Amino acid sequence: MGRSLTDQWVPADDRALAYGDGLFETVLVRDGEPLLWRRHLARLARGCTTLGMPMPPAGELDALPAKAGPGLKVLKLILTRGSGGRGYLPLPSAEPRLLWQVTDFTPQAQRWKAGVRVRHCRLRLGVQPLLAGIKHLNRLENVLARREWDDSEVAEGLLCDSQGSLIEATSMNLFWLRQGRFETPRLEGCGVAGTLREALMACHPFSEVTVGAEVLAEAEAVWLGNSVQGLWPVVRLDDADGRRQQCWTLGSLHRSLQRAAHELLGYPSTFNS
Amino acid sequence: MGRSLTDQWVPADDRALAYGDGLFETVLVRDGEPLLWRRHLARLARGCTTLGMPMPPAGELDALPAKAGPGLKVLKLILTRGSGGRGYLPLPSAEPRLLWQVTDFTPQAQRWKAGVRVRHCRLRLGVQPLLAGIKHLNRLENVLARREWDDSEVAEGLLCDSQGSLIEATSMNLFWLRQGRFETPRLEGCGVAGTLREALMACHPFSEVTVGAEVLAEAEAVWLGNSVQGLWPVVRLDDADGRRQQCWTLGSLHRSLQRAAHELLGYPSTFNS
Repeated sequence: MGRSLTDQWVPADDRALAYGDGLFETVLVRDGEPLLWRRHLARLARGCTTLGMPMPPAGELDALPAKAGPGLKVLKLILTRGSGGRGYLPLPSAEPRLLWQVTDFTPQAQRWKAGVRVRHCRLRLGVQPLLAGIKHLNRLENVLARREWDDSEVAEGLLCDSQGSLIEATSMNLFWLRQGRFETPRLEGCGVAGTLREALMACHPFSEVTVGAEVLAEAEAVWLGNSVQGLWPVVRLDDADGRRQQCWTLGSLHRSLQRAAHELLGYPSTFNS
Repeated sequence: MGRSLTDQWVPADDRALAYGDGLFETVLVRDGEPLLWRRHLARLARGCTTLGMPMPPAGELDALPAKAGPGLKVLKLILTRGSGGRGYLPLPSAEPRLLWQVTDFTPQAQRWKAGVRVRHCRLRLGVQPLLAGIKHLNRLENVLARREWDDSEVAEGLLCDSQGSLIEATSMNLFWLRQGRFETPRLEGCGVAGTLREALMACHPFSEVTVGAEVLAEAEAVWLGNSVQGLWPVVRLDDADGRRQQCWTLGSLHRSLQRAAHELLGYPSTFNS
């Protein structure tokens, strides 16, 4: 099984390569059944509307997860605007290219159980409401932020926007519990609106907030999550120099939200902690 | 003659396609001689430093313009980070891919002579000092801004940043004369530092300023320019709805800066206006 992007070739005039002009999705697939599929498709459709490009036919997309075959897989889709156009202006007739790959996947169960260490990034995300929330291919900010550390003990970096508001982690959304309220950053100016985040918000009383990183000092529990890895409790937060800033003790508080997330993804929901 | 990106193929796992993880340059070449070549290479090198990737060997780059052959051409280079890595984190061993094409080019001489009509864009550029100035492949903001109009009479759109400061046009830099002073937007937070802009600033007394679009109401002359098209006088500015906001009469004021720019590019420097 498996189909790799490495084996697919794209003309070098594709606008995804020239301008990052396109979208992507990364979908967990278990035995050919995609998780949170409707939410992935809905986000892809929102991206197509934003960029002004046609959404691929539903049948074409819906046929992909079954091709993953048995076992736990990740299906990655890239939808490019296709070739052509005069400079930045796309041709109205541009034909999007749909690329996809399936890879075997093993989640990091130890991170579910023991939690993760994260750090603050120095990079501040630029504010661009037009592109906020969608999963577009302009990801240099994430690449630069991820390059800020190379310690494999540090699972993720936390990102604020240029106004100092907490937004997300480099490849995950951010959640916390503070004074008994579940909160997650509002993503109107930047950040990716993850499908796990959306699904959690639909079944759990979350407030979307615009707050600085200082609120994490008051948080009783902090989590990172996405639709592929599930939910990781945060047990340690370092500053942008890698110095320990704060720690949390894993407890039942952490497990309740993790259980809700993992039920959505078919992942284990109890751990010996 | 000619070599097209259309005929070159790139593996779909290239990081330029996945994340816009790379850089580009667009160079005017006359009879195999590149214009402003050292400045193009310097900007590419700055971009490599910012992204943390190796600059291609000088010999490899320096050999390209001669391949354009006789006549006026545009050489487009794309330097991608190459393939691989775990998500956003590139492999230290990633091997950059250098793609290039040569196309015939005819500048729009009528725009040199008669000037151009431009309009304000609604889109506001996000502020990201880490990426400001370099010519990276994350260009969705330019693509979306360029899609704001489809009237071929409108040559370019003016862009402000999210704080309301004038920055550039969708694919050109912006210059104006106000109270006898030559000014151009400071590009510390966003925008592309064009090679023609740099060359003009090196030979002409320009001030880099952080100002809102209202200063154009006081401008005696306004220009747009880049290293391929040369310098276009602006004779009409529309608002973001396409309604006329301001007009300028072409005169000797316009021609002096145009002459300086066109001498740098080997373009005509006198017009019957």
